[in-house]
Amino acid sequence: MHSFFNVTDPKEVLGYRTEFPPVAAEKVSLFDAAGRILAVDIVSDLDLPDFVRSTMDGYAVCGASTFGASEANPAYLTVKGSVTMGKKPDILIRAGEAVRIPTGGMLPAGADSVVMIEHSAAIDDTTIEVYRSVAPGTHIVAIGEDIGKGEILLSRGQKIRPQETGLLAALGKKKVCVYRKPRIGIISTGDEIIPINETPNMSQIRDINTYTLSGLVKETGGIPLIFGIVRDEFETLLAKCLSAIEQSDMVLISGGSSVGLHDFTIKVLSCLPATTILVHGIAISPGKPTILAKTQKKAFWGLPGHAASAMVVFTSIVKPFIEQISGLKKRYKKEFRPTALLMRNLSSAQGRIDYIRVRLIQKDGVYWAEPILGKSGLIRTMVEADGLIKIDIHTEGLEKGTEVEIIPL
Amino acid sequence: MHSFFNVTDPKEVLGYRTEFPPVAAEKVSLFDAAGRILAVDIVSDLDLPDFVRSTMDGYAVCGASTFGASEANPAYLTVKGSVTMGKKPDILIRAGEAVRIPTGGMLPAGADSVVMIEHSAAIDDTTIEVYRSVAPGTHIVAIGEDIGKGEILLSRGQKIRPQETGLLAALGKKKVCVYRKPRIGIISTGDEIIPINETPNMSQIRDINTYTLSGLVKETGGIPLIFGIVRDEFETLLAKCLSAIEQSDMVLISGGSSVGLHDFTIKVLSCLPATTILVHGIAISPGKPTILAKTQKKAFWGLPGHAASAMVVFTSIVKPFIEQISGLKKRYKKEFRPTALLMRNLSSAQGRIDYIRVRLIQKDGVYWAEPILGKSGLIRTMVEADGLIKIDIHTEGLEKGTEVEIIPL
Repeated sequence: MHSFFNVTDPKEVLGYRTEFPPVAAEKVSLFDAAGRILAVDIVSDLDLPDFVRSTMDGYAVCGASTFGASEANPAYLTVKGSVTMGKKPDILIRAGEAVRIPTGGMLPAGADSVVMIEHSAAIDDTTIEVYRSVAPGTHIVAIGEDIGKGEILLSRGQKIRPQETGLLAALGKKKVCVYRKPRIGIISTGDEIIPINETPNMSQIRDINTYTLSGLVKETGGIPLIFGIVRDEFETLLAKCLSAIEQSDMVLISGGSSVGLHDFTIKVLSCLPATTILVHGIAISPGKPTILAKTQKKAFWGLPGHAASAMVVFTSIVKPFIEQISGLKKRYKKEFRPTALLMRNLSSAQGRIDYIRVRLIQKDGVYWAEPILGKSGLIRTMVEADGLIKIDIHTEGLEKGTEVEIIPL
Repeated sequence: MHSFFNVTDPKEVLGYRTEFPPVAAEKVSLFDAAGRILAVDIVSDLDLPDFVRSTMDGYAVCGASTFGASEANPAYLTVKGSVTMGKKPDILIRAGEAVRIPTGGMLPAGADSVVMIEHSAAIDDTTIEVYRSVAPGTHIVAIGEDIGKGEILLSRGQKIRPQETGLLAALGKKKVCVYRKPRIGIISTGDEIIPINETPNMSQIRDINTYTLSGLVKETGGIPLIFGIVRDEFETLLAKCLSAIEQSDMVLISGGSSVGLHDFTIKVLSCLPATTILVHGIAISPGKPTILAKTQKKAFWGLPGHAASAMVVFTSIVKPFIEQISGLKKRYKKEFRPTALLMRNLSSAQGRIDYIRVRLIQKDGVYWAEPILGKSGLIRTMVEADGLIKIDIHTEGLEKGTEVEIIPL
C-alpha cells in the first residue's frame, strides 16, 4: 500500500535545471525594463560623452596658464565669455584666458581643464584670480570616457536594474528586448482545502498555498496563473493538470504529494503525455515529499501541502528553475547573503539538507540568528522568520556561535 | 554671484522624515497584497487549526496503546476504519484501536497521537503491527497551536510578504487594508538634456535620470509620475513644479541644484506656496548639492544632475522618506546587509559621509569589496557596481581588509 521515496540529493535536483529552456523574448518599453532579464547583448553605438565635458562649475582654461598659482600668488586670467549648456561654444581659449563653464558644459577649443569656481574669484567682469594650479585633464570627462563606441555594455541573461535603464537611456533605447515573464500555473489539491471566502467546518482549512506561492512567483519575476482548488479525484486532477500545463511554462501543484492515502499526484503526473518523473522525494527537510516531472519541456512540481514546507521547497529548489526559464544566467545571479551568529546549538540528521527558520536579532552591533521552534506545517513560523539557514547534507549539526549565511525570507 | 552651501549632516536630514505623514489607505485584493504595507492591525478571529490535526500519514491511536512497542516486540492494534480528509470522523478510538489517518486529517475522539505509517505494517485488513511507541501529542497539531483566537498577528506599518498573505488567507481575508503606493513626481532639468528618442548634437546628452529614478521609485514601492524635461527657465520650471506637487505625494527634480550658472531650483522652490527650504546641501559625497524643501506637507527634492550622484542620494537619503510616507514603520524595516572585506585602503574627507561604489568578488569563499574608480558623474560606474559602502562622517578612511557593510545596488 505504500512505498518509501528514493530521495534525490538536492544538488542533483538542481542539476535538472538545464533540461528546461528559457521562455521567448519580447520588447518592452524602457520604463518597464527594470527587473527584467535582457534577451540580447547591448553594444554601444556611440561615445559617451561625445564631447569633452566639465564636471564642475568654474572656468575652462589651458592648465598651463595656472601652473604655480596659489592663494599667495594667484594667476590672473582674462574671461572671454560663458559656455551655454547644450550649445557648442565658438570661443578659442589661449594661454592666459578663461571661459565660464557650468557642470556638464562643453569645453571650448584650446581648453584642457577646468578651475573650480571655489578656487577663483572675479576681480572685475573680465578678470579672475585663480588660487590653485590645475593639470590638463582636471575636472573634465574625455570623449568616450564613460562608454566607448562598439563596447559590449550589457549581456544577454543579465538582470536590468535602474542603473542599466539609465545606460540604455543614454544609448537612446526606447524599447528593450527581454525574456517574457514565465507563467507559473498554481494548483491546490486536497479534499480538506476550501476557498478563503468560505468558513471552514471543523476538519477543513482555507487555501493558503495559492497565496504564498503566487507571492513567491511574483517576487521571482514570474506571472502566477491560479487554477484553484481540486478535489483528490483522479479524473478531475488529471484534467486540471492538462489544462494548467497547456497554459503555463511551469506548474506547481501543492498537497497530495506525500506517500499517503490520497497520493494521486504521482499517478496523475505519470498519465500526462510525454512525461518523465525526474524526482520523487528530495533529501531536504522540510520538503522531502517533493515531485519533479518533465512534461514536454516544462517542469511540473508536486509540492508538500504544508504551507511552510511548500515555501521552503520553493525558495531552495523551485526558484532557481524559474530563474533558469526566465533567462537569468547563473553568472549574473548575484546573491550576496547577510551572515549572523547562531544563537544556540542545532542538531541535524546527516544525509539531508535541513532548512531552519530563524529570527534575526541585533545585539551590540552583531546579528544573531535565533532558530524558531514549532512544527513545520505551521504558517506562523514563516511569518515570524526573517530567513532560513541551511545545514548541509554531511553536517551533523551546528554549534552556537557559528557564522551562518541567511537566506532572506 | 555664488554662495557656498551650508551643508547639513545626513543624520539631521533623515530626522526630517517625521515631518511627512503617510499617505492614505486603500483596500486591495489579497493577491495584490504582497509587497504592500499594512494599514491596520490584524487580529485573529479563529483558532488555527480549529481541530486536532495529524501532521503525518499513519494511524491515529491512544499513545498508551503503543507504550513499549519495538521492532522485536510490536504492539498489535485493531484498525477501525479511515479518516477522510475534510470530514469529521465519527469513530471513537479506545485502547488497542487505531484508525488510518492522512496528513492534515482530523483526529477522531479518543485518539491523542499518530503513529507514522513507516513505523507500522498491516497484518491483515483490520490489524496492524506498530514498532515504535508514541507519546500522547506526537505528530499532531493542537487546536490554536498555530494561531490563537484574539491574538494580534500582524501590525500596521508592517510589510506584507508572501507568508503574511498565507496567514491572511488562513483568516479568510479576501481584501486587505494597505497604504496606497505613494506617487513620486520626477522632473529632469537642464538645457543640455534631450529626450531619449532624439539624437544628441555635440554638447547635449540624453535624459538618464528620469529612467534611473523611476526604476528606483518602483523598487521602493512608489509609483513614478513622469513630468519630462524642463528647460532652465524660471517660469517654465515654476509651472512644472506646481503641477508636479499638485499631482504627487513627493517630487524629485534632478539637475540644476549645484551652485552654478543655472541654479534655478532653489529660487523656484522658494516661490512655491507654503514652502520651507529645510536643507540646501548635504554632507555626503557624491550628492552634496541636494535640496530638500517642504511644500505643504510634501517633500520636494532637488537632486544632482549627474546620474550616479542622483542614484546615491536616492539610495541613502530619499528612499527612507518614501518608506516613511508609504507607512512602513522603522521597526519593521528589516535591512540585513551582507558584509565583505575591503580590497584596498580608502581615504576619505572627514566631515562628510562618503559612498563608494564597489564590485563584490568571491575568493576562497570570502567576499571582497573592490572600489570602482571613475568619475562620479559616469553612469558606467553604477552599472559595474554591486553595492555601495559607507565611510562615516568622522572616519578618515578605511584600511584594506576592514569588514564593510554592503548596501546592495
